[in-house]
Amino acid sequence: MLVAPTRSLVRESFIRSGITSFISQAVPRGTHANTMGWVDFMRRRPREQPATVATSAALAKNVTESAVDPPPLDPNNKIVKAALCQVAVGDDKAANIRRAGSLIAEAARQGARLVVLPEIWNSPYSNDSFPKYAEEIADEKTSGAPSYEFMSRAAKEHGIVLVGGSIPTRRNDKLYNTCFVFDKTGDLLGSYSKLHLFDIDIPGKITFKESDTLTGGEGLTVVDTELGRIGLGICYDIRFPELAALYAARGVQILVYPGAFNTTTGPLHWELLQRARAVDNQLFVLTCSPARDEQGGYVAWGHSTAVDPFANVLGTRDETEGIVFADLDLTEIETRRSNMPLRQQRRRDLYGLLDLEG
Amino acid sequence: MLVAPTRSLVRESFIRSGITSFISQAVPRGTHANTMGWVDFMRRRPREQPATVATSAALAKNVTESAVDPPPLDPNNKIVKAALCQVAVGDDKAANIRRAGSLIAEAARQGARLVVLPEIWNSPYSNDSFPKYAEEIADEKTSGAPSYEFMSRAAKEHGIVLVGGSIPTRRNDKLYNTCFVFDKTGDLLGSYSKLHLFDIDIPGKITFKESDTLTGGEGLTVVDTELGRIGLGICYDIRFPELAALYAARGVQILVYPGAFNTTTGPLHWELLQRARAVDNQLFVLTCSPARDEQGGYVAWGHSTAVDPFANVLGTRDETEGIVFADLDLTEIETRRSNMPLRQQRRRDLYGLLDLEG
Repeated sequence: MLVAPTRSLVRESFIRSGITSFISQAVPRGTHANTMGWVDFMRRRPREQPATVATSAALAKNVTESAVDPPPLDPNNKIVKAALCQVAVGDDKAANIRRAGSLIAEAARQGARLVVLPEIWNSPYSNDSFPKYAEEIADEKTSGAPSYEFMSRAAKEHGIVLVGGSIPTRRNDKLYNTCFVFDKTGDLLGSYSKLHLFDIDIPGKITFKESDTLTGGEGLTVVDTELGRIGLGICYDIRFPELAALYAARGVQILVYPGAFNTTTGPLHWELLQRARAVDNQLFVLTCSPARDEQGGYVAWGHSTAVDPFANVLGTRDETEGIVFADLDLTEIETRRSNMPLRQQRRRDLYGLLDLEG
Repeated sequence: MLVAPTRSLVRESFIRSGITSFISQAVPRGTHANTMGWVDFMRRRPREQPATVATSAALAKNVTESAVDPPPLDPNNKIVKAALCQVAVGDDKAANIRRAGSLIAEAARQGARLVVLPEIWNSPYSNDSFPKYAEEIADEKTSGAPSYEFMSRAAKEHGIVLVGGSIPTRRNDKLYNTCFVFDKTGDLLGSYSKLHLFDIDIPGKITFKESDTLTGGEGLTVVDTELGRIGLGICYDIRFPELAALYAARGVQILVYPGAFNTTTGPLHWELLQRARAVDNQLFVLTCSPARDEQGGYVAWGHSTAVDPFANVLGTRDETEGIVFADLDLTEIETRRSNMPLRQQRRRDLYGLLDLEG
């Protein structure tokens, strides 16, 4: 009755066990290797162009079995100075851009090389605002996309890697909550649209339904930067441990979640979830929230935070506008994984995590 | 009347709870990373396979696709008064049993119906002690198993459901770290042996290698009690989110982790991990630690804790001997899952959790 385990066996087991139907129903994939430019990204959007997608059932992968190691550390880049810009966001887009620019400049002046903006930093956080503030960014036509162009310029001007929080975007008449990452020359390294939309209803506390206006993104985004391998999630995405685990399996070193928790879930869950994702996956987690506007329709929790792979909080702040700085010592990842080899200790005979993007 | 704590019995509890597919596949599993020596362990690369894995391929199940709902709530049993007995454990087994008995009696006197004991409550926590304090409990022969017999008697005497923490056990010349659960008549409902052995090496802080003496258990244990469906993990098991997620998918309402974290990882991770498992899976988490003995070879963190499905701490204490009480309102599970429908919001097109037992 005992059978010799091989990966192909496990893979066949998915097929034999009827997960085939699941896999073949899954939408075609192909966008996750997001070191592509935006143009390629648009061109290869999976739902519209299934024919171009090579991923198939055979590529569904149990990542508990095999994981990709992070890229080797550049000896000159082991310490990454990161800055989380907790911008006070209002209803004037141009003013939001100016405030973001001012914080980015200050972060760079103080030596930050990795700078992060908040979720929906150019617009109020509301279903009414998303269509009005959305920018259409497609096929090299970025005119009329002032927030996008500003981010590219700022990254180049200050010579930083910029994880541009998120802004509402429009593609093919659909709205998304999208993060763009730029390198120090201002080139786009990758983009990511929020996968898990924020639809919750806690009566008397907080009710929001992003899916009234937004569409969920197509897949994960891993971005290789000169400062390390970054994985992207946005806000509510942090509630799904599978996403963080998939990123870890793809060798991500720094997980960045721009996010605007609220004053109900913020105090209870915001830091908790960041620290849990960090220690379970033994990697860095950065979050960046807008500052709190008590008069706004959505009252953000603030508290942008940086967490190390042992769940230590490296830097955080209250709900006010300002910058959180943190030095990320990337050698900590290997140290923690060596001291506590969770990946090797997983019970591969009992469970597995499927990466359906392959 | 005592019933043999055999796996067939545990299997029957699954049959009663309808998880039949698990049973047919409950074949013994073979060697695992945890049973290797430390050097071999460190040398082993993640891509390599364990020598044998007895998973039956045909039964692998993607539980992100289909999960079992918890059993319907008994209208008279919606609130469960739980007690976590943080016993001061020493090197005299008879004295340990007396102390545990005294705390159980006090818990019952105050109305607790679900009582939990700590990890390794009858023995010092050390590789030297495990073989000496181990009890052989197999096939209805429980004579010479005083800790086991005490637990059965105590459950019956006080009319409680007792999650008996864990004790070292011997089966077929192998040692395990095993939890037994008894109903209010003293019958055994199920048993569980720690799946993920505690092998860590944080230089200058804490080094321990359970796999020097212990063998990892064979699989998950779900126990249906009159107070709800309980899932079992022990200490280091809490670091593996897949385990908690599998239990949630099997309809578990209360996850119980007897555990003895230490003074290095305790302050940083103990409450964090409990609250993360609770909020990610939207269920109750109970932990029970021995009290701290500063003179002991292993200095436990203490801080037994009860957490609700929204990550609220319902009860906790410091490192001293005593009891933590908590009222578990089981209707909270449905409320939280309705307010924030994480299970339905998972991205089934992108990832899946494989239950290889089921």
